[in-house]
Amino acid sequence: MASLLASPQIKKNPDLYVFLPLLYTVWSDTVLTPSEVATLEGLIRSQTWLSDEDRSLLLSQIDPTAPPPPDDFMQWREEIRRVASDPRPKQSLVDLGIALAALHDDGTISPRLLGAKTSLEKIEATLGLISHEAVSSFHDRRSTITAQQSTTHSFEPVKLTAILDGNQADLIRKVKTLLCDPEFSYVDPGDLGRYRAQVLRWLKHLADQGYGAWAYPVNYGGQADMAGYFTIMETLSYHDLSMVVKFGVQFGLWGMSVYFLGTEKHHQKYLKDIGSLELPGCFAMTETHHGSNVRGIETTATYNHHNKTFTIHTPHIHARKEYIGNAALHGQKATVFAKLILDGKDYGVSAFVVPLRDKSGKLHPGVTIEDCGRKMGLNGVDNGLIHFNQVVIPKDDMLDRYSSVNDEGRFESPITSDNRRFFTMLGTLVGGRIGIPRSGLSAAKTGLTIAIRYGDQRKQFGPEGGAEVPILNYRTHQRRLMPLLANAYALHFGLQYLTDRFLKRSEEEMQEIEALAAGLKAWATWNTTATLQECREACGGKGYLSENRIDALKNDTDIYTTFEGDNTVLLQLVAKSRLTEFKQEFSNMNMFTIVNYLAGQAKTSITEMNPIAVRNTDEEHLLDPEFQLSAFRYRERDILTSAAKRLKRHIDSGMDSFDAFNVCQHHLVMVSQAYVERILLEEFRAQIERVSDAGCRAVLKKLCDLFALSQIDKNKGWYLEQGYMEGVKTKAIRKLVNQLCWDIRQDAVPLVDAFDIPDKLLSAPIAVR
Amino acid sequence: MASLLASPQIKKNPDLYVFLPLLYTVWSDTVLTPSEVATLEGLIRSQTWLSDEDRSLLLSQIDPTAPPPPDDFMQWREEIRRVASDPRPKQSLVDLGIALAALHDDGTISPRLLGAKTSLEKIEATLGLISHEAVSSFHDRRSTITAQQSTTHSFEPVKLTAILDGNQADLIRKVKTLLCDPEFSYVDPGDLGRYRAQVLRWLKHLADQGYGAWAYPVNYGGQADMAGYFTIMETLSYHDLSMVVKFGVQFGLWGMSVYFLGTEKHHQKYLKDIGSLELPGCFAMTETHHGSNVRGIETTATYNHHNKTFTIHTPHIHARKEYIGNAALHGQKATVFAKLILDGKDYGVSAFVVPLRDKSGKLHPGVTIEDCGRKMGLNGVDNGLIHFNQVVIPKDDMLDRYSSVNDEGRFESPITSDNRRFFTMLGTLVGGRIGIPRSGLSAAKTGLTIAIRYGDQRKQFGPEGGAEVPILNYRTHQRRLMPLLANAYALHFGLQYLTDRFLKRSEEEMQEIEALAAGLKAWATWNTTATLQECREACGGKGYLSENRIDALKNDTDIYTTFEGDNTVLLQLVAKSRLTEFKQEFSNMNMFTIVNYLAGQAKTSITEMNPIAVRNTDEEHLLDPEFQLSAFRYRERDILTSAAKRLKRHIDSGMDSFDAFNVCQHHLVMVSQAYVERILLEEFRAQIERVSDAGCRAVLKKLCDLFALSQIDKNKGWYLEQGYMEGVKTKAIRKLVNQLCWDIRQDAVPLVDAFDIPDKLLSAPIAVR
Repeated sequence: MASLLASPQIKKNPDLYVFLPLLYTVWSDTVLTPSEVATLEGLIRSQTWLSDEDRSLLLSQIDPTAPPPPDDFMQWREEIRRVASDPRPKQSLVDLGIALAALHDDGTISPRLLGAKTSLEKIEATLGLISHEAVSSFHDRRSTITAQQSTTHSFEPVKLTAILDGNQADLIRKVKTLLCDPEFSYVDPGDLGRYRAQVLRWLKHLADQGYGAWAYPVNYGGQADMAGYFTIMETLSYHDLSMVVKFGVQFGLWGMSVYFLGTEKHHQKYLKDIGSLELPGCFAMTETHHGSNVRGIETTATYNHHNKTFTIHTPHIHARKEYIGNAALHGQKATVFAKLILDGKDYGVSAFVVPLRDKSGKLHPGVTIEDCGRKMGLNGVDNGLIHFNQVVIPKDDMLDRYSSVNDEGRFESPITSDNRRFFTMLGTLVGGRIGIPRSGLSAAKTGLTIAIRYGDQRKQFGPEGGAEVPILNYRTHQRRLMPLLANAYALHFGLQYLTDRFLKRSEEEMQEIEALAAGLKAWATWNTTATLQECREACGGKGYLSENRIDALKNDTDIYTTFEGDNTVLLQLVAKSRLTEFKQEFSNMNMFTIVNYLAGQAKTSITEMNPIAVRNTDEEHLLDPEFQLSAFRYRERDILTSAAKRLKRHIDSGMDSFDAFNVCQHHLVMVSQAYVERILLEEFRAQIERVSDAGCRAVLKKLCDLFALSQIDKNKGWYLEQGYMEGVKTKAIRKLVNQLCWDIRQDAVPLVDAFDIPDKLLSAPIAVR
Repeated sequence: MASLLASPQIKKNPDLYVFLPLLYTVWSDTVLTPSEVATLEGLIRSQTWLSDEDRSLLLSQIDPTAPPPPDDFMQWREEIRRVASDPRPKQSLVDLGIALAALHDDGTISPRLLGAKTSLEKIEATLGLISHEAVSSFHDRRSTITAQQSTTHSFEPVKLTAILDGNQADLIRKVKTLLCDPEFSYVDPGDLGRYRAQVLRWLKHLADQGYGAWAYPVNYGGQADMAGYFTIMETLSYHDLSMVVKFGVQFGLWGMSVYFLGTEKHHQKYLKDIGSLELPGCFAMTETHHGSNVRGIETTATYNHHNKTFTIHTPHIHARKEYIGNAALHGQKATVFAKLILDGKDYGVSAFVVPLRDKSGKLHPGVTIEDCGRKMGLNGVDNGLIHFNQVVIPKDDMLDRYSSVNDEGRFESPITSDNRRFFTMLGTLVGGRIGIPRSGLSAAKTGLTIAIRYGDQRKQFGPEGGAEVPILNYRTHQRRLMPLLANAYALHFGLQYLTDRFLKRSEEEMQEIEALAAGLKAWATWNTTATLQECREACGGKGYLSENRIDALKNDTDIYTTFEGDNTVLLQLVAKSRLTEFKQEFSNMNMFTIVNYLAGQAKTSITEMNPIAVRNTDEEHLLDPEFQLSAFRYRERDILTSAAKRLKRHIDSGMDSFDAFNVCQHHLVMVSQAYVERILLEEFRAQIERVSDAGCRAVLKKLCDLFALSQIDKNKGWYLEQGYMEGVKTKAIRKLVNQLCWDIRQDAVPLVDAFDIPDKLLSAPIAVR
């Protein structure tokens, strides 16, 4: 093809420059389509002011078989840029072309160009978006709203930290200081032996500082401070999670089982040595064939009255204690759960202290231990399989708070039913279901800190001709991370509420607190998994490198959704507990009682289901805590009611209750989720009411709005099905969620800074400055 | 309290036994509530046929402060079981009590008990569900529908395998046979050095069998069989994924870049040695600061005409090539992407073959390499960071298919625009976006095989008094795994379709195929992540042990959502490609053209939006492929149309196009997802049409129904918002999804058996028999 800019025609007739931006644009597109060629050809032919030479020159420029050489093309771009440095809104390619022609014609715009403008612009319109993008791309310093968004400081992070830490601030600071000691530098998890030895050393340091015994009574070396114990677990969780889990196994599961299931004699004998790590031990409950259904364990403890001993025995290979932390290497004793057999009768599950190995590591006779080997995570914990072959222990080593054998060799218990006894024993260990979600939340906070700081710095793509943009300015990136940041804050307050309820519990509240703990444990640990997955992806390849820690956080916490109770199983227990509220209504249920029930508890929401409310899209309404809470409460109650109705219908029709519960299992999971989410929203709102600092209050309010509305958005299918909202309203909510994500992005870095995780512990090169 | 069964009264008046089941039940409950006590007390006081002694004996049995001793309680249970061994439907506790009383009264039922039955049963009713459950629990061999469900064989797995494997069956069998050789035994990933060395040995075995060069021309040692290359990648992915990724780096990225971006001289010089692994190499594109936005890379290749060389240079630390597979240890050369600088002008990205180290491992002068260290997964691949300090290479080592420097030192290219040239170069490498999702699908199939076989065998919980139940019989477990099994089949056929399109591509189809590959890559790899997460959780603690392989599968594939293009970024590219369909309409868009567009392409769906269709809950309708396809197509079109409208509205209002795209980013992701899902459904349906075996056809039809309806259920919020369906219909779909999960569960084991993954490769102890 003839070179356009070097042609004699264009020198003679500078008005030809008017075509240059259009020509440049069609060639810079990925493909010059036949329809584009036809359109341009039509345009050129229709311009009566062109000479035949002009026309054939221009037509030669759009021949797909003879593209302009790259060097010519680069020259075109240089030419166009001469007139494009001063961006004006709504500028078109034709505007650029006219300016360019004028430039080459001593600054005068020829009237015939102005005359042709309309027909030229019609052509441009058919190029659509591309032409708009093309005009912008010529601007050297193209400025966009997206590029301009950045971190602001609408509140003081230290003040927010103070709110989060509350009266535990001192202890948190002490634990963090200790963890920043060089002794606590991270180690590579590749070599199991070295990693496990290091984790044991860390545990010893913690015990030496008194943190292991913290919850125990003062006379056993502790501070009798259970709240502090949870704080320690949570704060340690900014560090290596193998250390946290081994800490929990030793001082929580092993120590607390002796403390809560044993009596004075056991406390005196063991508790001090457990707290100081002199006596490493295990919590041996789960068996290969009985994990979730732990009531079905098959290990036996047979009482021998002639010598007042128990014989602990594993009847077959599937009844071995499995996944037992501290068992493979360090545990010297274990709390073993076994069926008590007395005079040939099975008295259900009791707990016993059983020796595993001596201080030198030599296994006790009859005890065989196998290493669980490498795991997805937590490889600093030495999990093992334990097999007991007729291991004899003295009668005194039965943990006898809830069941015992008296001097006559008869079974005794303050609790009649073995079922109830079992759940009472488990209930004393509910602390584990508080420690785990709090640990998981710390891991999620670490992940968010890393991903959000990285997203604020990492730039990628940008407008043509403009600078690259921080990836946290992209809407999809915000949608991935901001709702999870809101969840982290919601869970922080929710888990504090759970802890408070637990610490101040009365006997009567135990069932409710157990349900709350089970529900929050499930919700929080799934949220941890989801959060760390998003954080990994949000950090791209950097997130995949172990040095940036999301690897370890993600893999170590992945089992949190399983241990201390499989989440799905837990949510079914929660749902059954919620259904007991309904016990009375349940049998006599008919539409009348259901309406009464709803009316009694939910006068507001009935009035909300009117044609105006279900279509109300006012921002003021959507941000009203009353609307949000009503929506959460309505959902909780409605799902509970309908689950109860379904169960009753099935059972009334002759279905076995076990089958009926199975048919409704998915529904029951929703019952529990709706319950947990309502609690989370209530407690988040309640916390905001207690905040006096205006800056903190405002940002927490925004986070709470995002939490509430993103949950409603997640469940919008349900709200629409019920007619609680119409499409216009759910669409308005989605829009508001996007807007809140955009707004909160500007506070996102200070919001993760307020978690106040030391850089030493974050350690990730992409997140520390 | 007085012992009930040992009391003289009960011997005198056996009718008192009628209360035993009620008493047992309230005590076996976890808590005896005050209202239960009051209710029972009222009942006892109202029974006029009781003597005062009888009454006070019974009242003493419900004193919360004096529970019956455990031994007595166990005796009660034994008593009740005597009459409960013969289960009758709708039996009540009172029925049991009456039978028990009769047993102790020589088999006669006293008339006064029959008279009291109504008032007794009223009490029982207030106990609600618990009483029903209690009656069932006395049955020794309680049989439930849930417990009875088990694996059936409605089709022959070998026939389904033949359908899946198609004409690649021979090659698949050969590769599997090789992988089952003891040489390919799995190794522990803990020690990076040993693991990487083993992976290299595996690669050598594969190269020796000719698998590395498979896609290359016959004269370079290959089979010129690209289809086979994908089959090999996919089949290898049942084994260690580090091996697969290193295979892909060496023979795919490194080899194919030389093949597709280079010319004859490069093929002759390198291809044979690449295919035989004589010449290990890298694909060095990504830089620290430019991953997704790879067009912005900053490495330079400056041409020196005086000696006809290029100088490859890394201008600053953030422009190092990062995450480069094969770089840390084994790569001797690399295809390096760099900006070509000629006479001080930047001609955009080109590719060059650059030496890294010699055969002995000594680094080439000017090359510095840093090991990326431990990663979340794929630790058998030696990823590295490469820094070039003025490395000089001969002019001939420019891969010059799309850009070159001629003898006069001038730039030449058949493609005018650098933008288009860059995307053309990338387009030749689209094979990677086919290989990765196919590899990820194999990993998902492995995970599903492990989790489904385990779920079929693993028993946990069961009805009181009945055997434990396989966990795959639980509805939540089915809901977790069955839709993912359906997805795996949908993706199998979808990725086969993509491969076929790619292999038979014409130049004009490339844009469409690139969009299809990008979209399917994103959808498939996210599905892999989601599938393996569910599989891990579904296998509980067993899923966490590395021996069961979900650990490695999950961690190795986690990066699949990032490499070969970050999924979120890819989906935006797909959406932009979809929008080009709209280019014409875009600028002139008004309601008229939109309606025309919709009407033209979608006559059926308009007619479907009538009041009857949106409420149609007939199973026949919901299972009708026409309904399902229409719903998918409507969604795809509507989201695309509304995204285009939104973009146009923003741009028309003066918003910069970059900002407009950002505001709509979330919407654009949905555009692409809806597009991919429509393709998947169409191809799944098309495949079923080709199946002649009735058994296979029936089960594939069910899987396809589950795929279609579970996707609609997932998106029900959208369908409800649009008014395309009403709540009654989405509820009916949810119910049908549950039913399909229940039905497919019975075929689930044969369905994963049909994947035909050798036990040797599965290796997981919980999955191999």
